[in-house]
Amino acid sequence: MELKVALDTMWVLVTAMLVFFMNLGFAMVEAGFARMKNCVNILSKNFIVFAVSSLGFLALGWGLMFGDGNAFVGLKGLFFAGGLDNSPATGLAYQGVYSAISWTGVPLWAKFFFQLVFCGTAATIVSGVVAERIKYKSFIFFTFIMTMFIYPVIGHWIWGGGWLAQKGMFDFAGSTVVHSVGGWAALSGVLILGPRFGKYHNGNINPIPGHNLSLATLGTFVLWFGWFGFNPGSTMAADPLAISHIAVTTNTAAAAAVMSSTIISWMLLGKPDLGMTLNGCLAGLVAITAPCAFVSVGSSILIGLIAGILVVLAVIGFDRIRIDDPVGALSVHLVNGIFGTLCIGIFAQDKITGVATGNGLLFGGGTKLLLAQFTGVVSTAAYTFIVSLLTWAVLKATLGIRVSLQEEIEGLDIGEHGNSAYPEFLGRKPAYSFLGTKNG
Amino acid sequence: MELKVALDTMWVLVTAMLVFFMNLGFAMVEAGFARMKNCVNILSKNFIVFAVSSLGFLALGWGLMFGDGNAFVGLKGLFFAGGLDNSPATGLAYQGVYSAISWTGVPLWAKFFFQLVFCGTAATIVSGVVAERIKYKSFIFFTFIMTMFIYPVIGHWIWGGGWLAQKGMFDFAGSTVVHSVGGWAALSGVLILGPRFGKYHNGNINPIPGHNLSLATLGTFVLWFGWFGFNPGSTMAADPLAISHIAVTTNTAAAAAVMSSTIISWMLLGKPDLGMTLNGCLAGLVAITAPCAFVSVGSSILIGLIAGILVVLAVIGFDRIRIDDPVGALSVHLVNGIFGTLCIGIFAQDKITGVATGNGLLFGGGTKLLLAQFTGVVSTAAYTFIVSLLTWAVLKATLGIRVSLQEEIEGLDIGEHGNSAYPEFLGRKPAYSFLGTKNG
Amino acid sequence: MELKVALDTMWVLVTAMLVFFMNLGFAMVEAGFARMKNCVNILSKNFIVFAVSSLGFLALGWGLMFGDGNAFVGLKGLFFAGGLDNSPATGLAYQGVYSAISWTGVPLWAKFFFQLVFCGTAATIVSGVVAERIKYKSFIFFTFIMTMFIYPVIGHWIWGGGWLAQKGMFDFAGSTVVHSVGGWAALSGVLILGPRFGKYHNGNINPIPGHNLSLATLGTFVLWFGWFGFNPGSTMAADPLAISHIAVTTNTAAAAAVMSSTIISWMLLGKPDLGMTLNGCLAGLVAITAPCAFVSVGSSILIGLIAGILVVLAVIGFDRIRIDDPVGALSVHLVNGIFGTLCIGIFAQDKITGVATGNGLLFGGGTKLLLAQFTGVVSTAAYTFIVSLLTWAVLKATLGIRVSLQEEIEGLDIGEHGNSAYPEFLGRKPAYSFLGTKNG
Repeated sequence: MELKVALDTMWVLVTAMLVFFMNLGFAMVEAGFARMKNCVNILSKNFIVFAVSSLGFLALGWGLMFGDGNAFVGLKGLFFAGGLDNSPATGLAYQGVYSAISWTGVPLWAKFFFQLVFCGTAATIVSGVVAERIKYKSFIFFTFIMTMFIYPVIGHWIWGGGWLAQKGMFDFAGSTVVHSVGGWAALSGVLILGPRFGKYHNGNINPIPGHNLSLATLGTFVLWFGWFGFNPGSTMAADPLAISHIAVTTNTAAAAAVMSSTIISWMLLGKPDLGMTLNGCLAGLVAITAPCAFVSVGSSILIGLIAGILVVLAVIGFDRIRIDDPVGALSVHLVNGIFGTLCIGIFAQDKITGVATGNGLLFGGGTKLLLAQFTGVVSTAAYTFIVSLLTWAVLKATLGIRVSLQEEIEGLDIGEHGNSAYPEFLGRKPAYSFLGTKNG
Repeated sequence: MELKVALDTMWVLVTAMLVFFMNLGFAMVEAGFARMKNCVNILSKNFIVFAVSSLGFLALGWGLMFGDGNAFVGLKGLFFAGGLDNSPATGLAYQGVYSAISWTGVPLWAKFFFQLVFCGTAATIVSGVVAERIKYKSFIFFTFIMTMFIYPVIGHWIWGGGWLAQKGMFDFAGSTVVHSVGGWAALSGVLILGPRFGKYHNGNINPIPGHNLSLATLGTFVLWFGWFGFNPGSTMAADPLAISHIAVTTNTAAAAAVMSSTIISWMLLGKPDLGMTLNGCLAGLVAITAPCAFVSVGSSILIGLIAGILVVLAVIGFDRIRIDDPVGALSVHLVNGIFGTLCIGIFAQDKITGVATGNGLLFGGGTKLLLAQFTGVVSTAAYTFIVSLLTWAVLKATLGIRVSLQEEIEGLDIGEHGNSAYPEFLGRKPAYSFLGTKNG
Repeated sequence: MELKVALDTMWVLVTAMLVFFMNLGFAMVEAGFARMKNCVNILSKNFIVFAVSSLGFLALGWGLMFGDGNAFVGLKGLFFAGGLDNSPATGLAYQGVYSAISWTGVPLWAKFFFQLVFCGTAATIVSGVVAERIKYKSFIFFTFIMTMFIYPVIGHWIWGGGWLAQKGMFDFAGSTVVHSVGGWAALSGVLILGPRFGKYHNGNINPIPGHNLSLATLGTFVLWFGWFGFNPGSTMAADPLAISHIAVTTNTAAAAAVMSSTIISWMLLGKPDLGMTLNGCLAGLVAITAPCAFVSVGSSILIGLIAGILVVLAVIGFDRIRIDDPVGALSVHLVNGIFGTLCIGIFAQDKITGVATGNGLLFGGGTKLLLAQFTGVVSTAAYTFIVSLLTWAVLKATLGIRVSLQEEIEGLDIGEHGNSAYPEFLGRKPAYSFLGTKNG
């Protein structure tokens, strides 16, 4: 018994470390897809976001998410994970205020660390979408709110024994809890912020290429690697059959999405676009996150193929409706977070790893499961979007959320940080040709 | 018993993740050693190669490699790893069609995932050698053939209970199965492709320096790190004495090779060349891959020292015979893959981790083992080289395998992908001074 | 029992791999914080340093550190870890010459590998401080001395059962053994080397910005990630409560230090400096290294907050006294290595993970523990500083330790390696404006 606790703890910690490492992946993807003049700002945001999350989730987030309470929010052991708890005891032997997560037999701090890195992921998703025009200070404040009041509430609903869990909605590793929550928070921010200067000018959509595809590729590899912590680790126990199955569904969906996003972009754009391939990979990973434990390897191929197509269409679509997402994070995390959550209702099979989700639409389960999933998607959207929108609005009215036009044109690195990422490399002056003679 | 399965599964999955991460290492080494104008193309190839491998090895490769069959190829459970299998049962308790790998007590998908990442490594080795002139589409097709028909057959011979295994040939973690197979496939490609434009002009050997040694160094560190999954993980069980021993022989050989390649390049070239140091490290790692479990730590020093010298001489030698390998992968993976395989015949000692390989030449075993190893090297060369050559030839006659001269001069990034890796950084125009006045 | 050995061995090896990976972190941080013209040199130093450490620590370091001997040095089993040893036997069952580390039940080579990566960390700390002017050859020689004669002796005093261990001094994961030892060795080198050309000219302190903050950020993330091996791994056993606790104190201290260093630099410098944020993170990690297992999560916040402030003040302070440390490593590793060691004497609580350190000053233990810690700090300083200074002096008198002024101005990449890290990127000519008309 004692050995099993040690084994499970090792699994939980090692996979949590991999998820932590995804912070590097996000930083490099977002920096690579953005312009040189905003690079220090992006690196700074992506670095500090996990520090803020660590403090915010410790101070309050954990308690709201996993503390015993009502169907909507935790009420006990709220602050600094300081409630009574006799982990690693489980089941009937468990005594404490964090009952919703007492099914896993590891120490409290292992549970906390694992859940923290998921919270941090949701928070870091926001940073890419609002990049290249948000004020550093306001992003830091938003992250505190996000990790203390937004993420933990949805988390309570789904993973903390709240009303969506009771309704039979499933989200194995967080397509909704992590990815769509990040996506909705980001979308609300973008609607208040508006597009970057020059992106949509005189009715044109001006592509703004990223400054470093080597970094973007590096980041995507790191994320793919980290996802082997994200999904298989979400067993929170070293269950051999489950973790092996999940490793393979996760990888296969990613592979299929890489192929379909590459092929579809090749067909639509004439050439195989590396950015689309990379975002395709991430889309497949996001989509398989919710269903990874409940679907067959065969289904994971299909899920990946669809995800890769969805992300390409979404990137093009968001641009059409003038929603400016510099790194494609809405298409990856929001669109495919929703899609992946619904996939449980479509592809789930009870027999896969023995979790009784009920069968999905394609496997004779009717629409019951799909409806529960849909309820989860809609309610998450409503809460996250509204609270985030309010938060951004308050920040706009107080600190301000957007840098000045001049600072945006000159780059946030100088304006916000007094710094340059590559002071010795010579760069091209960004051309604002659509502005006519106003620029040199 | 159940705990042992969980423990071994965790070991197999965690080390497989590390091997997966080597894809990043290869991508960064190859991108760093190539020119800026081909960077997107190299990143694209190194990224998609693992997606293709994932699908190809799942669809057929696994079955051909590990399915029960004859001495040359698997015949049962060929498609999508779908054969009967009651893993994690082992030995007499095993019932299924993948008997050759029933010695390890982990679930089927854990076995699959671990073997997949090795297949992916063999495939990614090819990409560096053919870099800077191959068509993207043809590389993708070749990778499918490689992971479905080439790698799995050699794998069956040596790890799938085939005729080389029966002959007493050993290859612990894949100096032959992975590295020389990748090397021979690449060599055949290079012979059909020919050298890059400008590399050998008017009888001169023109050095073409890579564009980013920071990335190349990063990649080599990632590969060194990943190799701690590659070699110790190949126990496919958390056997404490074996995995500790292998971690140290692996690291020591790498360290010795770093020193010898640095010193020999210092002596031959006048200065310690970083590229040689990095490739020296990889050479030591490749060489110790086959014998890591069968040789002493003392022998691993010697193996590393020789590998580091071999790689420097091979890089110089391949250039002399006009075989243009932009990243030195033939010298690393082919030459040292062969050397490492033979090292078992020279340095193996039965007593090391209890595997009865027989002793090598230097430890009183005579030439018996060395001959078996030699047979493995030669037969692998024959099959891999011939089938690869045929594949490349067919691709050349159909899709074409080489980009146009103009595209090669302008860079494959624009031609193949319509993209640039660093659109904002100003770069030098590549000088083709040997062309006289034809270039600006 | 056998399973426990396997489990603990897996933990020790996996965490050791993470610590190995920190070599990449140091390489990227140091390369990023230095100038483009010295990049190949820095990458070369940071790459070869672990190879040298691997050979030096194997040849002699391990034996001096853990061999049975007197209070000052090991005397048995000195060479190539070749002494008698029946690991994984522990306690009374242990028979061998490495008694001081017989408390952990893993094979000898697992112990060796884990200790080796710590030795390598101490050695690599030196490289950043002496960067941009040291001769490559002399750095290699110093590293041999460091890993054979300097690090192992302090290691013996504290972790090898030597006189400081007997005095009741504690250093859980190496704030002193690794970080201050690296710091003192570096400081002695810097005092003999002097500042970089142009750094302090005509009484001014000229900032010399690093060439690539993307790499520096990447490196810091890798180090943060690796620290989850460094600290939790130092249990050298998969003790669930201890490793979970340590993961959280480690992360929380880092997070707090990120916040405090960012805020204090914002206040002092007017803008939030990314370099300060990154070094703040490392400072928090160094400071929590010694006390991570002995202090509460609450205390870890405080320790981190102070560390983040200390590092900013130290960076400014070292510049004021004309000690030129290009990457801030003295402020990170030396200053916070000392601070972290003293933190045990201030914040330790016996109850945390059951190790009887005695309570620190703030928890009713009086000054006893703090005095023992102080003794450790001072004696480590004396031995390391003096022996290092002598070593540097001998190297200066023989090989020379500083490149010529011309080579320094042109960059060490050409001078030492005949190479350039980014041969295709156009760079700014470094301006030496303070030299008047002597430069173009």
